[in-house]
Amino acid sequence: MIRPGYKIWLSKGDEKAFGQGPCELLRRVEKTNSLHQATHQMGMSYNKAWRLIRLIEKRLGFPLLEKQVGGKSGGGSQVTPRAKDLIERYERFETDAIKAIEKAYQKHFGSQARNRGVR
Amino acid sequence: MIRPGYKIWLSKGDEKAFGQGPCELLRRVEKTNSLHQATHQMGMSYNKAWRLIRLIEKRLGFPLLEKQVGGKSGGGSQVTPRAKDLIERYERFETDAIKAIEKAYQKHFGSQARNRGVR
Repeated sequence: MIRPGYKIWLSKGDEKAFGQGPCELLRRVEKTNSLHQATHQMGMSYNKAWRLIRLIEKRLGFPLLEKQVGGKSGGGSQVTPRAKDLIERYERFETDAIKAIEKAYQKHFGSQARNRGVR
Repeated sequence: MIRPGYKIWLSKGDEKAFGQGPCELLRRVEKTNSLHQATHQMGMSYNKAWRLIRLIEKRLGFPLLEKQVGGKSGGGSQVTPRAKDLIERYERFETDAIKAIEKAYQKHFGSQARNRGVR
């Protein structure tokens, strides 16, 4: 069975600036207030995640995380308002884009997939 | 300046079955009636192209090229009717999908790109 394949991200120049992986990482930091916990949940190394966040911040030109100092839990990481705005927009963009790709596939291959041709 | 990044193809199971590269190759075979000329135009090795075509035929389950025997030019390669149908559908699918991705990006990032936020 043939189906549409796709990868979607945000670019700056010729370089990837943001995508599904970083989006999921930030969502998890948002829930846990901890980059450590977020990376642990995703089976990702903390150092790798840290370098990735720094790289994205450099490419986008604004901070994604800010350190929480003190408090009951003794600090942690918080997602900045601008990063929250980014992940919300990105998720809606991604959802709409995927729906549209599937729709375009159905339009041009749907009848054929049911009848003959590409199966 | 941030912009949407994407890659689109057709999958069979978890494997790529068809995409932009093979589509361009077949278009050039269609025009030149020669896999040799098509690969030459694309700066691609003939052997690599041949293996690629075979692999896609195996994944899709139908032939893409047929040998033309004899004639003025002493034979060559022709794109099969089913492959022609595939490349036409694929090109329309790709065009629509790309338009839709750009539209989804404008919807969710357009105003922000003009005002503040992701630039």
